[in-house]
Amino acid sequence: MRRSTYEFGSDVRIEETATIVGPREKDGPLGKYFDKDFRDDLLGQKSHEKAEIKMHVTLLRYLLNKSKHDQNDIDLCISGDLLDEIMGTCLTMREFDIPFMGAYNACATFAESLITAAMLISGGKFRRIISSTSSHFSTAERQYRYPLELGNQRTPLAQWTVTGAGATMLNDSLGTVALTSCTIGRVVDFGVTDSNDMGACMAPAASDTMQRHFEERGVDPDYYDLILTGDLGDAGSRLLKILMREKGTPIGDNYNDCGVLIFNRAAQDVGQGGSGAACSSTVFNGYVYKKMLRGEYKKVLLVPTGALCSKTSVLQGESIPGIAHAVSFEVI
Amino acid sequence: MRRSTYEFGSDVRIEETATIVGPREKDGPLGKYFDKDFRDDLLGQKSHEKAEIKMHVTLLRYLLNKSKHDQNDIDLCISGDLLDEIMGTCLTMREFDIPFMGAYNACATFAESLITAAMLISGGKFRRIISSTSSHFSTAERQYRYPLELGNQRTPLAQWTVTGAGATMLNDSLGTVALTSCTIGRVVDFGVTDSNDMGACMAPAASDTMQRHFEERGVDPDYYDLILTGDLGDAGSRLLKILMREKGTPIGDNYNDCGVLIFNRAAQDVGQGGSGAACSSTVFNGYVYKKMLRGEYKKVLLVPTGALCSKTSVLQGESIPGIAHAVSFEVI
Repeated sequence: MRRSTYEFGSDVRIEETATIVGPREKDGPLGKYFDKDFRDDLLGQKSHEKAEIKMHVTLLRYLLNKSKHDQNDIDLCISGDLLDEIMGTCLTMREFDIPFMGAYNACATFAESLITAAMLISGGKFRRIISSTSSHFSTAERQYRYPLELGNQRTPLAQWTVTGAGATMLNDSLGTVALTSCTIGRVVDFGVTDSNDMGACMAPAASDTMQRHFEERGVDPDYYDLILTGDLGDAGSRLLKILMREKGTPIGDNYNDCGVLIFNRAAQDVGQGGSGAACSSTVFNGYVYKKMLRGEYKKVLLVPTGALCSKTSVLQGESIPGIAHAVSFEVI
Repeated sequence: MRRSTYEFGSDVRIEETATIVGPREKDGPLGKYFDKDFRDDLLGQKSHEKAEIKMHVTLLRYLLNKSKHDQNDIDLCISGDLLDEIMGTCLTMREFDIPFMGAYNACATFAESLITAAMLISGGKFRRIISSTSSHFSTAERQYRYPLELGNQRTPLAQWTVTGAGATMLNDSLGTVALTSCTIGRVVDFGVTDSNDMGACMAPAASDTMQRHFEERGVDPDYYDLILTGDLGDAGSRLLKILMREKGTPIGDNYNDCGVLIFNRAAQDVGQGGSGAACSSTVFNGYVYKKMLRGEYKKVLLVPTGALCSKTSVLQGESIPGIAHAVSFEVI
């Protein structure tokens, strides 16, 4: 039987991280953990797409400054977003003189990018790689559902796409948090067709990947101080708990979801919680990484989740399968 | 100075390839080299998007059969296409029980996918990976320009998106053609804004990557029997030759372009030639690989090229930067 879990030991480490978020994320429970924020979600641009690009460019420049590296020190950027043709990232990379590979696994893109970067560094040919993702509430609504100008009512299971961007600089020697293992996900289809219910599309994929991760790594869920899915939201997280219990690997109090953590659902009118390619990248690079540096978490399993659909596929009646990749981190 | 060229020796080899094409590609000069073809470009489906999915699924099933492998023998698929949210590939992978990572670098996606696969295999953690891409004339026109139903006139510099899909099965030991090196491209922007003139958007990126490839590998262009860009088309290829000559590394008779080779421009009404994510993957996996097996080519440099734009970015007045990655193959 093929395995899809890979171990890195302490060969791959986080050298630095950076995050930038919009007003709603800054005003949320994790606000103080983010490096940069802005109040005008257009960032002075003429469109939200251009704003998303400016946000991603600002993030990468800030990460280079913060880490005291120039572009030449970076071997590769592996980055993505949710726009058609990952346009935001492609036009972001126009501003940098760094080799670029575009990744797309919907809101699981951050995990895909981390896994590829870790594989490349552990392979010995790369020293330092940046993984980054961005998303923007206003571009995502237009991209996946309806233009905001239509004023559509939001459905009970809808989530709120995180406006922000997060980046991880991985390298082969510096840093006290290691990316220790990963499990690569496969596409899992439970036949959900409601593009407003992303949590239900993705929970089966999260369950599939987590089951295989625990089994192939030979650890129980309580091995980790924190298990964090990407953006299942509140309803989706509850679905995941049921699926995990049914399969005999219940997850307990050490489980949470980035989409649940980033907003205050009671006060912020965000439906089931946050979502988007930046949901896991801002929460991990802002909140989780800083907690790990302080020793408050020592072993973390991050499981970004993606719903694989487009406006066209939904209009053509296709189901929305999910994918999830798991990445573990440990303080060394 | 950072290098972006990496060597693999004979650690990464092509075990098998497969191709499937539509009627125009089958009727073109390379028709006899493709494994499978179909006459109805809807493949009996209700939409061209669904047809593109069926084509990609058929290709991967055929490759598994041809190579006498089952899904469990494949460690990973790294695949992509041109649809928003690479929807065709995501829904293709729904049919397989194989770990999946989605790649997107426009029409350079095939190169990105080959490079990632080669890195993962040479890193020692993977034995066998499939790289594949698809494109379809009718889905690409709707995606990037206008729905075909509008009957828009084609401009003189337009190209014809290849309807087809190509896949390479890479592994660590079997096969007589090795993937010997690669150069990862960066985003290059010459300010071109005409989404009908993809060749001009991509030629500067091809030139940038090829220059670095020759310099960092320490070889001249005539080291290779064949240098093949992905889909610059006729006008774009001529631009590339000028750029290469100006930079002091002229390319000669050993240079050609997959988009020029795949169609008979005089007879097939395809504008400047073929384009699309499947242009390089069908021509390489069909024509070039079979010529290499027969010893007619021994050293080949493949440089798939991508124009980084979306309908939205073009409508918002953004320029269209290009990217190109180079991958070399040698008979061992």
